[in-house]
Amino acid sequence: MKIGVDLGGTTVGIGIIDDDHSIKSSGSFRTAGITETSGLIETVINGIDETVSRSGIPFECIDFIGMGCPGEVDAVSGIACHADNLPLENTPFGPILSERFHKPVRIDNDANCAAWGEHIAGVSKNCSNVVTVTLGTGIGGGVIIDGKILHGNENHAGEIGHMVIDIHGKRCGCGRIGCWETVASTRALTNEVETQAKYAPNSRLGRLIAENGGHANGKTLFIALNEDDNMARSIFNDWIRFLEVGMWNIINIFRPEMIVISGGISNEGDTIILPLRAAVGKCSTIIEAGKLGGKAGMIGASTLYLCD
Amino acid sequence: MKIGVDLGGTTVGIGIIDDDHSIKSSGSFRTAGITETSGLIETVINGIDETVSRSGIPFECIDFIGMGCPGEVDAVSGIACHADNLPLENTPFGPILSERFHKPVRIDNDANCAAWGEHIAGVSKNCSNVVTVTLGTGIGGGVIIDGKILHGNENHAGEIGHMVIDIHGKRCGCGRIGCWETVASTRALTNEVETQAKYAPNSRLGRLIAENGGHANGKTLFIALNEDDNMARSIFNDWIRFLEVGMWNIINIFRPEMIVISGGISNEGDTIILPLRAAVGKCSTIIEAGKLGGKAGMIGASTLYLCD
Repeated sequence: MKIGVDLGGTTVGIGIIDDDHSIKSSGSFRTAGITETSGLIETVINGIDETVSRSGIPFECIDFIGMGCPGEVDAVSGIACHADNLPLENTPFGPILSERFHKPVRIDNDANCAAWGEHIAGVSKNCSNVVTVTLGTGIGGGVIIDGKILHGNENHAGEIGHMVIDIHGKRCGCGRIGCWETVASTRALTNEVETQAKYAPNSRLGRLIAENGGHANGKTLFIALNEDDNMARSIFNDWIRFLEVGMWNIINIFRPEMIVISGGISNEGDTIILPLRAAVGKCSTIIEAGKLGGKAGMIGASTLYLCD
Repeated sequence: MKIGVDLGGTTVGIGIIDDDHSIKSSGSFRTAGITETSGLIETVINGIDETVSRSGIPFECIDFIGMGCPGEVDAVSGIACHADNLPLENTPFGPILSERFHKPVRIDNDANCAAWGEHIAGVSKNCSNVVTVTLGTGIGGGVIIDGKILHGNENHAGEIGHMVIDIHGKRCGCGRIGCWETVASTRALTNEVETQAKYAPNSRLGRLIAENGGHANGKTLFIALNEDDNMARSIFNDWIRFLEVGMWNIINIFRPEMIVISGGISNEGDTIILPLRAAVGKCSTIIEAGKLGGKAGMIGASTLYLCD
């Protein structure tokens, strides 16, 4: 049995996962609002204790703990170097957990964990060269080459959301202009839906947003799309085109066996995957939605011991 | 002693290279105008024979032949799959040379050979993660990860010149819009010089072009730049900005230890390297001009036996 920890800015998910990568038991604990590193460490340690004790699985049966963290992580030393939305600053989280639980511990970046999870137990199981694109508020990436996670200098490889595709475009949070995530992230899509619906409050999209307290979410567009709404179709087509451009860039740079689309929006499945496949049709890189959904990071973390 | 063959659309360069990667003897043979595969093979075989015999080095002292080819190359089987500017179509060039000369032979893509040459014997010798950017008519790339050339599916990895950076830009030869090489290749720079100088025939650039039969070449801009010509400075600054965008994309994707600028224009050295370094100043990826100049491909080919 392994423990997989998926540390995020809102919650930390903790799972007890068997050797076939099935989650046997899990818990979720709040991290939002924690401003001190010590409080964050305590939350993770208590979360692990509580999840194990609630599961009824004896602690002796756990032989590994893996954790995915946002931001920069030094996988070799187990140090969480920095995260924008959590109080992590050169925090030796790996050694701390290892000392506390007397188990081998590994940590890595959360997008790398999601990529690793899909590689070990999900859709890209049989591929040794894969790029996983995590679509969400931003766009993250996990790159696997020759069956190994590409970390790069200072563990910064795979920041594919910050590949510029539109040099005359919008300013990104990172300071550059026209990064892929400014137009192709889930947030970019949601923003576009809200902006366009403002001008057409009686459209299907406008009404869906009104019903949702004035905001679009990751599903709004897809509901309207299923009802054949024209405005939704046009926004979707533009977004898919932006997504396509980045896919082709990844293909031209890595020519991986597979590109995995991960993150909540991948639940839309064929609606997203089919047009992307059509766009890259003439090349041999397969495009697939992740199979592990929101659990990819947790499962990936629990299998980090296979990373060598 | 090894033989390094650098096969191009105009000439094939053949070098006899010692174990310290110094070229002991070399020859150049014309390939332009060859339309048959058999003629091309003959040219390479005769070129090798002639270069060796002219060198006075006994053939028995040669223990390896390596060759770089443009286009798609299957390094494992030694097949030159396809090239735009040479009659190569699934040509088993490796096995043919091996059978003819009774030596071990390896072949690879020419940009990969240039990257490998700099990695084994040039500027990026001590780095195991390096991206080499070959600036010329187009932009090619050779990616080395963990000390190995990244080939990708169908040997198509490293096509970094076809990473889109300007989705509203110019159409590229590949059919897509706004590929990096449409704005940042040496040809893009030369085209821009010619276009702008047309409107100012009495400018320094205009006069240099007139002196050169109406055409700019890779040096025109840099001559005017050294004379502090304003138009040259402005064209150069725009071009460097385009180059920078791609550099940052490579950094965000791979975060390599080093990016090597290769190709003829890298002879301009600090003029190009210093502004690029300034642009990426805050990150740890080092930017360097290649050390082997136009011989990187030949030397790299001669060291392909180290590729494992």
